[in-house]
Amino acid sequence: MPLAEELAKKQREIAISEFFERNKQILGYDSPTKALLTAVKEGVENALDATEEAAVLPEILVEVRKLGKDEFAVVVEDNGPGIFKKEVANVFGRLLYGSRFHSRRQTRGQQGLGISGAIMYGQITTGKPATIRTRTAEMDVAYELDLIVDTRKNKPSVQREEFKVWDKKQGTRVEIPLKGRLIGGKQSIVEYLKSTAIVNPHAHVRYQPPEGDAIVWERATSELPPKTVEIKPHPYGIEIGTLLGMAKETKSYKLSAFLEEEFTRISSRVADEICKAAGLDPNTRPKSMSLEEAKAIVDAIPKVKVMAPPTDCLSPIGERLIKKGLKNVLGNLRPEFYSPPVSRDAAVWQGNPFQVEVGIVFGGDLPPDQPVDVLRFANRVPLLYQAGACALTQAVEAVDWRRYGLEQRGGQGVPYGPAIIMLHVCSTKVPYTSEAKEAVATVPEIMTELDLALKESGRRLKTHLSKKARREKTREKFEIVQKILPQIAAKSASIVGKKVPNLDATITKIMGVVWIEEAVAFEGGTYTVTIDVHNFTPAGKKLNLHALLPRNGWTLGKVDPKPADVREDGKFTWELKRIGSVEKATVTFELLGLEKGEYDETDLYVSGIPPELVIGAEPLPGDWELNYKEFEQEEAPAVAAEEEDEIDYDEAEEKLDDE
Amino acid sequence: MPLAEELAKKQREIAISEFFERNKQILGYDSPTKALLTAVKEGVENALDATEEAAVLPEILVEVRKLGKDEFAVVVEDNGPGIFKKEVANVFGRLLYGSRFHSRRQTRGQQGLGISGAIMYGQITTGKPATIRTRTAEMDVAYELDLIVDTRKNKPSVQREEFKVWDKKQGTRVEIPLKGRLIGGKQSIVEYLKSTAIVNPHAHVRYQPPEGDAIVWERATSELPPKTVEIKPHPYGIEIGTLLGMAKETKSYKLSAFLEEEFTRISSRVADEICKAAGLDPNTRPKSMSLEEAKAIVDAIPKVKVMAPPTDCLSPIGERLIKKGLKNVLGNLRPEFYSPPVSRDAAVWQGNPFQVEVGIVFGGDLPPDQPVDVLRFANRVPLLYQAGACALTQAVEAVDWRRYGLEQRGGQGVPYGPAIIMLHVCSTKVPYTSEAKEAVATVPEIMTELDLALKESGRRLKTHLSKKARREKTREKFEIVQKILPQIAAKSASIVGKKVPNLDATITKIMGVVWIEEAVAFEGGTYTVTIDVHNFTPAGKKLNLHALLPRNGWTLGKVDPKPADVREDGKFTWELKRIGSVEKATVTFELLGLEKGEYDETDLYVSGIPPELVIGAEPLPGDWELNYKEFEQEEAPAVAAEEEDEIDYDEAEEKLDDE
Repeated sequence: MPLAEELAKKQREIAISEFFERNKQILGYDSPTKALLTAVKEGVENALDATEEAAVLPEILVEVRKLGKDEFAVVVEDNGPGIFKKEVANVFGRLLYGSRFHSRRQTRGQQGLGISGAIMYGQITTGKPATIRTRTAEMDVAYELDLIVDTRKNKPSVQREEFKVWDKKQGTRVEIPLKGRLIGGKQSIVEYLKSTAIVNPHAHVRYQPPEGDAIVWERATSELPPKTVEIKPHPYGIEIGTLLGMAKETKSYKLSAFLEEEFTRISSRVADEICKAAGLDPNTRPKSMSLEEAKAIVDAIPKVKVMAPPTDCLSPIGERLIKKGLKNVLGNLRPEFYSPPVSRDAAVWQGNPFQVEVGIVFGGDLPPDQPVDVLRFANRVPLLYQAGACALTQAVEAVDWRRYGLEQRGGQGVPYGPAIIMLHVCSTKVPYTSEAKEAVATVPEIMTELDLALKESGRRLKTHLSKKARREKTREKFEIVQKILPQIAAKSASIVGKKVPNLDATITKIMGVVWIEEAVAFEGGTYTVTIDVHNFTPAGKKLNLHALLPRNGWTLGKVDPKPADVREDGKFTWELKRIGSVEKATVTFELLGLEKGEYDETDLYVSGIPPELVIGAEPLPGDWELNYKEFEQEEAPAVAAEEEDEIDYDEAEEKLDDE
Repeated sequence: MPLAEELAKKQREIAISEFFERNKQILGYDSPTKALLTAVKEGVENALDATEEAAVLPEILVEVRKLGKDEFAVVVEDNGPGIFKKEVANVFGRLLYGSRFHSRRQTRGQQGLGISGAIMYGQITTGKPATIRTRTAEMDVAYELDLIVDTRKNKPSVQREEFKVWDKKQGTRVEIPLKGRLIGGKQSIVEYLKSTAIVNPHAHVRYQPPEGDAIVWERATSELPPKTVEIKPHPYGIEIGTLLGMAKETKSYKLSAFLEEEFTRISSRVADEICKAAGLDPNTRPKSMSLEEAKAIVDAIPKVKVMAPPTDCLSPIGERLIKKGLKNVLGNLRPEFYSPPVSRDAAVWQGNPFQVEVGIVFGGDLPPDQPVDVLRFANRVPLLYQAGACALTQAVEAVDWRRYGLEQRGGQGVPYGPAIIMLHVCSTKVPYTSEAKEAVATVPEIMTELDLALKESGRRLKTHLSKKARREKTREKFEIVQKILPQIAAKSASIVGKKVPNLDATITKIMGVVWIEEAVAFEGGTYTVTIDVHNFTPAGKKLNLHALLPRNGWTLGKVDPKPADVREDGKFTWELKRIGSVEKATVTFELLGLEKGEYDETDLYVSGIPPELVIGAEPLPGDWELNYKEFEQEEAPAVAAEEEDEIDYDEAEEKLDDE
C-alpha cells in the first residue's frame, strides 16, 4: 500500500473526552496533590455560580474523606436551584456541555468542562463512578445517580439512578472518588477556601477535612453581590471573521440595525457614524456582507468614539474587600502601609469587557528579604497554580519596581521586599492559558490595564515612602534643633551672663515648615482621627486641609471643626484660619461602622499654601475639582523683637575656649 | 417557568471548534505577535513529522509575506509523503482529527489540533480561507483547495478545489493568511527556526522573511535520525480506570496473556509474577475484571521488577547535538567550561516512556550578572513561551544552585551567573500544560528525572569549579615558591658567601603534588591533546591516567604512549611508569572528525596513587569497573643529599639585618 494511503487509514476523529483522558494535566490533574485541589475547586465554583444564578445566599459544604492510601472522596454540596432531571447526566457526564459558554457575563465556570473533567479523572484513577444528588424547588424528593463519562463517545454512562428523600429543599451534591494527596501550605484546600471566602463574603463555607474538626467561614455579609447582567459584545477588538459570522446569523436586514442590535454601546447614531467611516451604505444587507466590507467596518470602529462597556456584566471585588483580603493574608503581621487599592475603569479585549483591581501592603512586620507575595484572582476565584505563566504575575515582573521603592535586580522580575501585591481581573470572558483555569493569558489589552494599575499602586507606595522619608528627615532636624539649640543658648547665656532667650523665632526660622501629624484611635467600634497642624514658621499661616476617606463602608460621627465642604465620594475640606507662629490647629472626626484594623491612615492634602512648606500632606491634586482660596500668607516679622536679649554667640564661644 | 427548567433550556453541547474560537489563547494565539510564531511552528512541526514518517531528508520552506498593515500570509512547504486526497479537508479543516494521537511513539504533533487551529485563527482574524496544496508519489498533479473550519460543526468547509501542475514530486504546502505582528529577538521566527535546525541537523530549512534575503540553514548531516517505533504502554504508573478500559477491549482471554499482549516489557514470566503478587488466577477472564481485581493488579505492578521501557520509541537529541546547540546559542561568546551533557536512562510516567537530557555551559565571556539562560526543548521542538509554567524551568528553580557554585537568592529560583542550561524532555507523550504545547506540565515522574539530571550537571560544574579553584591555589603557591625561594636563596647565598644551592628538593617538599596539565590544539581538522604529568613531589611516582572521551563522533589518530586499555565507550587508560621527582611524563593523542570548537577539555581521572596528591585530575569513580594496579609508591629520600651546601637562613637573615 502506498505510504500516503497507509497514513490516511490512520486518520481519525478524536473525541474530546479521549483527548482529555490522555491530557489530564491540561485540566489540572498533573499530580495527585493538584488533582485533589482541582476537583474541590471545580465543585466550589459550580456551587457559587449556581447559587448566584438563583440569587440565594450560598451555603457550601466541602468534605474530603479518605477512602484508601491515596484515594479520597471529594464532596461538594450547595443550596443552588438544583438541576432539571433530564439534564443531570449530560451536565456531569459530558465534556464541553454547559449553560454558561454562550452567555456574555462574569461567571466562574464558562467551559462546561470542569466538573465532568473531575468525574472523568476520578473514574480513570479509581475505576469508580461519581454520585450526584440534586433537587429543584419543584421536586418532592431528590434525584440521585451514579455515572461515569464514556470517554470513547463523550457521553454519560449512568450506572444507577433512584429517587431519594433529602432534607434539603433544593441544591446539588456531587461526590467524586479520586486518586489524590492532601497537602498543607499555600496550595492547600484550606487556603483555597479561605481566599474564596474572603472575596465571596456572602458565602457560608464549611470544610470537613479527612481528620479533625470542620472549619467554618461564616458569612461576613448577607447582601448578595449584584447579579451580573448578560450583554452583547462590545465592538472594540472584534475580528473580521467573527464579524462576518455574526452578520451571517443576524436577524437584522440593514447594516446599521445589525450593528445596533448585535453590539453593546452602539446607538443608531454611532451605527451611522461607523457606516460613514467605513464608507458603507447603512442599508447594506448584513447577510451579504463581503470580506472587504467587513474589513472596512473593523477598520472604522476604532475611529468612532464608542462608550466604554457597561459594568453591570462585571463583579469586581471592590476596595474594601481587597483590603480585607490582604489583612486576612497578613494574619498577625502588621504592615506599615496599606496602599489604597487601585480599581481601573472597565476596558475591552476582543469585545469582552474586563476590569482590573490591584492592592498593595508594605513594610511593618512583613519579612523584608524575600520575593514579594503575589496574590492572583480571576472572576473572584483565587488562582493557586501556574503563577509563572500568568499575566498577573508577568505584569508584576514587567514593572520597574526600583522606581517605587522596592528592590529588584535589573529592574525586572518579581521584586524583593516586605510587600504583598493582590491582583484581580474580572471579565465576561477571562482568557485562561488552559482549561485548568490556573493562569490568565497575556492578552495585550489586559497586560496594558494591569500595567497601569500596578504603576498607579506603585506611585501610591512611592508617595508614602517619600512622605515618610521627608517626615523622618525633618523630624531629625527638629530633634537636633529642639534639643541642641536650647542647650547652646543656656550654656552661652550662663557664660556671658545674660538670661536664656526665647528661641521660638530662631527655631521657626531654622525649621520653616507646617507640620501635620495624624493619630488614629479605635475604641468601642469608633475610629477617632486627630489631625494636628503645627505652624513651625516665623509667621501666621492659613490653609485648606483636605482628607480623602474611603468611598463607603462607614458613617460619620462627631466632626470638629465643621468642614467647609463634604462630598459623597469621601472628600472633606476644612478651611483653617490663621494659625499663629509656633501654634497649632486640630481637626478631629469620628468614623463609625468600620471593623478593627480596617482604617489606619487618612490621605491628606493641602491647598492655599505653598506645598513645599508642608510636611505630612501632599499638594491637592488637580482632579479634586473645586478651587479653594489661595490665602494670602503673612510676611515673617523682619527682625526678632527681643533684640536686647540676643546673645553674641561668638563672644560666648571665646569665653568657653578660655575656660 | 421554574428557574431550574429555565436554566436547563440553556444547556447545550459546545463544539470543540466553537470552544477554541473563543479560547484562541489556549492554542497559542494570545496576541498577533505570538500568533505569527505559533502558525509557523505548527506548520514546521507537521513538515518534520511528515518527512520523518516517509523517511526522507526534510526540505522545508517557510515564507512570511506581508498582506496588509497587520496581515501576513504564513507559508510552509515540505517534501513529505503528501496527503491522500479524501483526507486533506479533514486534516486541515477539523479540530481533534489526526493520525498520531493513538500511536505511542515520539512525534512532534500529537493532538490533531495544531494546523487546523492555525487555519481557524486565520479565518477569524482575516475572514480568508487557507490554501493547501498536496501531492503524493502516486499522483500526476497536485491537489489544491481553499478551506475554512466550520466552527459551529467542527467540519471543513471547502471553498474551492482543483488539480494543479506542481514541479514537486511529493509534498504539502499550506498557506494561511492571518493577523500577526513580526518581531525580532528571542521569541522570533528566526530564533525558533535556528533552534529547530540545531536539534534537527538532518533538515534543510529555508526562511523567506517579508523583507530582505532568505536565510538558509544547511543540512549538517544527511543521516536520518533512527525512526521511532510504536510501542505498547509500559505498566508503570497505569491507572485503575485505564486498566479496566484496556481489559474490556482486549482480545486476550486470559489475564496473563492480556498483560503480556497489551503492555511492553511484560514477558509471560513477569505476567505470572504480577498475577501472583495480585493474588489472582492468571486464567481470569480480562473482560470480566472487577474493580477490586484491577486495583490488586495496579498495586502489584510496582512490587514486580519490570524492565525499563525500550528506547527505540524515543529520539533524544544526544550529547553531541546538545553541545553543538549550546555553542550555536553562544555565538561569539567563549565560555570557560562545557559541562559534559547528562542523559538519563528512559523512565516512565503513566505508562509513557520518557527521557531527560541536560547540558550546561559556564563562565568565560558569558555575562555574569544576569539570570541564567534556560533553553527548553520537548520532542526536539524548542519551547519559546510560557517559561514560568514549564516543568523544565521549575526544575531549574527548585535546585539549590549555591551548592554548585552559582549565585541564587534564598537557594531557589532561576540562578544568576554566567551560564546557559539546556534541557530536553522527549516522550511518546509529552504532558503539555495546554494545547499550545508551550510548556511541559509538572508531572512528578518527570520532575524527579529533571531534578536528578540537573543535580548531576551541577555536580559536574562544581567539580570543574573546585578543580579550577584548587589548581589556581596551587599555581599561586607554585609561583611564590618558584619566584621567591630562588631569590631568597640567591641573596642568602651571596650574603653568607656560599654557592646558590639546588632547590628542587626543597620545592618538591613544599609543593608535594603531581600536577596534571592539558593542552588542546586544533589544526587541519585534527585535535591534538597533550597531557603533561609533572611530579612535584620529593620521590618518584607511578600512576594510571584515565581519560573519558565523548562516546562517538570522532576517530582516533596517533596515540603516544600506547594506552593499556581502550574501551568502546570512550574510556582510555595509560599506565604511567615511574616519573622521577621534578620530572614529567607526557601523553598525547589525536582526535579526527570533530569540528572546530567541538572539543575543549578531557575528563581526566587517576588511580593507583593517593588522589589528594594530584592536581588536575579526579580520583577514578567506582563505576569505571576495571581495577587497576594500586602502585606501591616510593618513599621520599629522608634527608637532602647536598647537606654541605645548605645555607643557614637564620645566619643570612642576621647578616641582612646588619647591612
